[in-house]
Amino acid sequence: MLKRILLDTDPGIDDSLAILLALASHEISLEGISVVHGNCSAAQGTVNALSVLELAGASHIPVYKGCDLPLVQPSLLAPETHGDTGLGYAKLPAPLSPPKVQKGSDFLIEQLMSAPGEFTLVCIGPLTNVALAIRQEPRIVEAVREVFIMGGAIRHEGNTTPLAEFNTFVDPHAAHIVYHSGMPITLTPLDVTYDCVLLKEDVERLLKIDSPITTFIADATRFYMEFHDEYQSIEGCVINDPLTMALTFAPDLCSYQEVYVDVDLSGGVSMGNTFADFYRMTKKPANMKVALSVKARDFIELFLQRMEKLARESNVLSSPQGT
Amino acid sequence: MLKRILLDTDPGIDDSLAILLALASHEISLEGISVVHGNCSAAQGTVNALSVLELAGASHIPVYKGCDLPLVQPSLLAPETHGDTGLGYAKLPAPLSPPKVQKGSDFLIEQLMSAPGEFTLVCIGPLTNVALAIRQEPRIVEAVREVFIMGGAIRHEGNTTPLAEFNTFVDPHAAHIVYHSGMPITLTPLDVTYDCVLLKEDVERLLKIDSPITTFIADATRFYMEFHDEYQSIEGCVINDPLTMALTFAPDLCSYQEVYVDVDLSGGVSMGNTFADFYRMTKKPANMKVALSVKARDFIELFLQRMEKLARESNVLSSPQGT
Amino acid sequence: MLKRILLDTDPGIDDSLAILLALASHEISLEGISVVHGNCSAAQGTVNALSVLELAGASHIPVYKGCDLPLVQPSLLAPETHGDTGLGYAKLPAPLSPPKVQKGSDFLIEQLMSAPGEFTLVCIGPLTNVALAIRQEPRIVEAVREVFIMGGAIRHEGNTTPLAEFNTFVDPHAAHIVYHSGMPITLTPLDVTYDCVLLKEDVERLLKIDSPITTFIADATRFYMEFHDEYQSIEGCVINDPLTMALTFAPDLCSYQEVYVDVDLSGGVSMGNTFADFYRMTKKPANMKVALSVKARDFIELFLQRMEKLARESNVLSSPQGT
Amino acid sequence: MLKRILLDTDPGIDDSLAILLALASHEISLEGISVVHGNCSAAQGTVNALSVLELAGASHIPVYKGCDLPLVQPSLLAPETHGDTGLGYAKLPAPLSPPKVQKGSDFLIEQLMSAPGEFTLVCIGPLTNVALAIRQEPRIVEAVREVFIMGGAIRHEGNTTPLAEFNTFVDPHAAHIVYHSGMPITLTPLDVTYDCVLLKEDVERLLKIDSPITTFIADATRFYMEFHDEYQSIEGCVINDPLTMALTFAPDLCSYQEVYVDVDLSGGVSMGNTFADFYRMTKKPANMKVALSVKARDFIELFLQRMEKLARESNVLSSPQGT
Repeated sequence: MLKRILLDTDPGIDDSLAILLALASHEISLEGISVVHGNCSAAQGTVNALSVLELAGASHIPVYKGCDLPLVQPSLLAPETHGDTGLGYAKLPAPLSPPKVQKGSDFLIEQLMSAPGEFTLVCIGPLTNVALAIRQEPRIVEAVREVFIMGGAIRHEGNTTPLAEFNTFVDPHAAHIVYHSGMPITLTPLDVTYDCVLLKEDVERLLKIDSPITTFIADATRFYMEFHDEYQSIEGCVINDPLTMALTFAPDLCSYQEVYVDVDLSGGVSMGNTFADFYRMTKKPANMKVALSVKARDFIELFLQRMEKLARESNVLSSPQGT
Repeated sequence: MLKRILLDTDPGIDDSLAILLALASHEISLEGISVVHGNCSAAQGTVNALSVLELAGASHIPVYKGCDLPLVQPSLLAPETHGDTGLGYAKLPAPLSPPKVQKGSDFLIEQLMSAPGEFTLVCIGPLTNVALAIRQEPRIVEAVREVFIMGGAIRHEGNTTPLAEFNTFVDPHAAHIVYHSGMPITLTPLDVTYDCVLLKEDVERLLKIDSPITTFIADATRFYMEFHDEYQSIEGCVINDPLTMALTFAPDLCSYQEVYVDVDLSGGVSMGNTFADFYRMTKKPANMKVALSVKARDFIELFLQRMEKLARESNVLSSPQGT
Repeated sequence: MLKRILLDTDPGIDDSLAILLALASHEISLEGISVVHGNCSAAQGTVNALSVLELAGASHIPVYKGCDLPLVQPSLLAPETHGDTGLGYAKLPAPLSPPKVQKGSDFLIEQLMSAPGEFTLVCIGPLTNVALAIRQEPRIVEAVREVFIMGGAIRHEGNTTPLAEFNTFVDPHAAHIVYHSGMPITLTPLDVTYDCVLLKEDVERLLKIDSPITTFIADATRFYMEFHDEYQSIEGCVINDPLTMALTFAPDLCSYQEVYVDVDLSGGVSMGNTFADFYRMTKKPANMKVALSVKARDFIELFLQRMEKLARESNVLSSPQGT
Repeated sequence: MLKRILLDTDPGIDDSLAILLALASHEISLEGISVVHGNCSAAQGTVNALSVLELAGASHIPVYKGCDLPLVQPSLLAPETHGDTGLGYAKLPAPLSPPKVQKGSDFLIEQLMSAPGEFTLVCIGPLTNVALAIRQEPRIVEAVREVFIMGGAIRHEGNTTPLAEFNTFVDPHAAHIVYHSGMPITLTPLDVTYDCVLLKEDVERLLKIDSPITTFIADATRFYMEFHDEYQSIEGCVINDPLTMALTFAPDLCSYQEVYVDVDLSGGVSMGNTFADFYRMTKKPANMKVALSVKARDFIELFLQRMEKLARESNVLSSPQGT
């Protein structure tokens, strides 16, 4: 049976790749997108989500603008990582359809409450929308089927501060709310995503198919690769969010540990640090399943094949004969 | 012109007195109540708000249940201060009317957006509902006319920890959001409310009028006075919330200073500490007007007179001849 | 009987006045000075202590250089408050005698252990030397007779951050060690010192006696008054340290409360905040006696009379007939 | 040339093994031991150091008792890890010689200042003594040749809290002082020591030599292995401190990275967390060399061979023919 997916995202280069991966994957059905501040503003991210959906011929999927500010922390966007528009060097046409008027967190509440046990929530941006929804309507905790979160850095160093991963650092209080909500969480931290490096030759392979989709991927990731090279001396680029999306239908890509995970909110150098109590020192029960190792090239191969399929299908659809 | 009031409250003994004061005051019009966790659970507080309104013949005023948990901190209720039901030794009949179905923060958003510049918001509980509303719909910051907040302890010691006042300690993150939202705030901290002590003889004066209202005040405050005696060696009881309500129509009861106020969120002994930058060391502009001294007996006299009037009017209305 | 005094200080304008007050007071015998970083560097402060002693003909009192850095925090000196040399506009001749070679904290340990129950310790700078001595030789806690500390701001706003007083902010960890050491402490916080304002007319009264001592006081405090005017809109200058010294022999100048006092070390906006548990919420026993109100003009009058006496006596001694 | 070693330690089971390793290693000369609180009290640790030296016929090496309390944190000893006496099930005769009267930190200062550039300092307990010495005599920073520290957990989880390693957690403020002192530090964190597991069969190999030394090692580590099994599900026991000692003469056992390392002091869940700025986000220069991988079995083999040699030599010396 098709997994029904709600996506909360801040698109963002790798967020866009995660959207494309969702659209390319027959195992899941993406039924709506709520947008949150993060890699870019919620307004810009909403435009990006709409444009990426239209690029892949999926403009029927509704997009809802959500929160534009973290709960407590000052706003922090990431133009140096994702470019001024959030999509690197890619330039997509302005979207034809507007977003829905309902707010992102209200959309999540409505969907989850309308079909208890049905929806899988995939969260690949700061968790502000989801945290707001939980405090606004606590019953969504029981109603959601599963929650996949891209976020945190357990043993791995942070990518925003020495200790904190971007999504968690941007809204650590939201992460704290969601982590401790009782929702059934699978976390994809930097410990696994930083093994998933998309290389220049991977992009060249995709470009063998001439398509707006492969062009988009190449233009977006070229910027992203420059960032990784300059700031982290990494060749290629880490595609965090698509891995999280892939785990919804290909869980065996990672191995997991059930463990108690918390977020530091004390406001010093450890603000937003996510850590696990592996030795059960706190005596607290596990509150999530954390991916701690990944078959990285298997994932990259899956991602490439799906992108190739999406590009080919999209070409057929948009060619004169395809109509 | 009548000031239109929205009240966010966690009733609570002194919250109930503030509701009665609002009903007794011709200068203002109480148009709706959102209830928040705090002195008691949001569910219990909703019942209490309805019962107190019915006690005073004001069941036409709608009540909305709001948030039942602080944003980030664990729940903290105050049965030792307000009794198990939140109303001390008072026993009110179960309310005849139910609360509205809309959520508290949604009600605040809807009202404020429906009449920009019209509504004065009076907040006498933890600020969770208001903070949620601000993040959900940032435009309410511009739409609200004025915000009166009971909370904080600037130079005064705290009443919940050595440094923190109850409303702020219970949800310091919500207070942080509201304080820094840009709303036009007047703060009533313990620095002034702890001068406003209702004495046993004040209650005896009220009891000279035989009325369910004066009986309620006597039963509720008797418990409250026992608490003040046991925990703070104070004779009588401090009626924080009615002072805040009074300032909406009798601002001259206090004198104020425009100053930058912040809340400590670092999680140590100072969690929820509210402090003012009197010497402008932080170079940050004032974000509120803080009441720093009060004509305490003037306020108590005003409160007593209004309660006497309310009790008398209510007797007339409910007597056979009154119909 | 003469009280035997050891002074730990960072001279500093008001520190210098405290030294002069000690020399002018027959009730006490100042037997040695250890110098600590704070208002100026420990090196500069050592020179200042020697110069001030020589100014008053007390070069027999030994001076020991102590710690030049706070325990954990980065160094913070106060040239904007005390001037580049620590003595405002005053210019004293370079001292003829050098400091002793022993380190400040070793001197304190040696003296206190040599005469258990004898010495009163007066601490009017950051508490680094004293904290080091306590950790190095814990038995001084029992050996010291009494400890008078200028520091903290209990209900009063801070003079360095909105919450923290200078001595405590500069080395909060040292303050934490000393406050919790078990030593019998009397604290003189800003709550009382900020009532003790030396006015321009007070200085003019002193200047009626023509003496290097009155000139020094006038030159030093002129700078200090400019600071108070510019940063705190206070006319005159607050002479914190002399009040603490006065309490060693004139305790009735203040009234006190025995209370549990702690220092916030959590590193956020409350770093170095000192607070008291007046309502005994923490259930911890009182760890000091805190001065909470002061007969301010009585103290200023005492200070002025002693300075007049010192100036006159000093003139007699240094005049040809005086030899 | 022989490396001259000063050892600061809290013996402790693995501390004792580090002392034995130093005595067994011809490349280095252990010239004095200062004892600090930690695994057991400073008093007990001093007895243990003396007993272990006497066990190995090295009673000529002087032992100095140091600090018995952390700088700021409350005392935390580890009887569950090291047993009530600090040496597990081992029972050594009471030492014949007493410790020296000089305090531990004074001894370190005196030695380091007496021979600038000569001494290598090995620190395998909480850093209280060393931190005190640095603040007392800052010139030791330049005088010390090299500092080897067992402490911290960089990417590895903590062994005392989910984030903090024991030595650092017990006195994080001391660690902060030492880490930022400018001393040339090599850190041996849990990231490498937790790879160095002494197995039951390793101990059985040692027991083939019948000697008080091998008996001591077996009795001490039997307790330690029970702890590792119960609390961390580790078979065998992690011998942290001997690895640090070994690196003074066999640096190639590890590979290192020069990096900026800090300690969290904010007092929340991350208290004592040690972390490295691998991506140079803070722009701060490297302050130490951190061991990040280890040839674990090479080290265990080195350790076993040295213990075998020590046991054999000690048997020869103590046998009638050996005299």
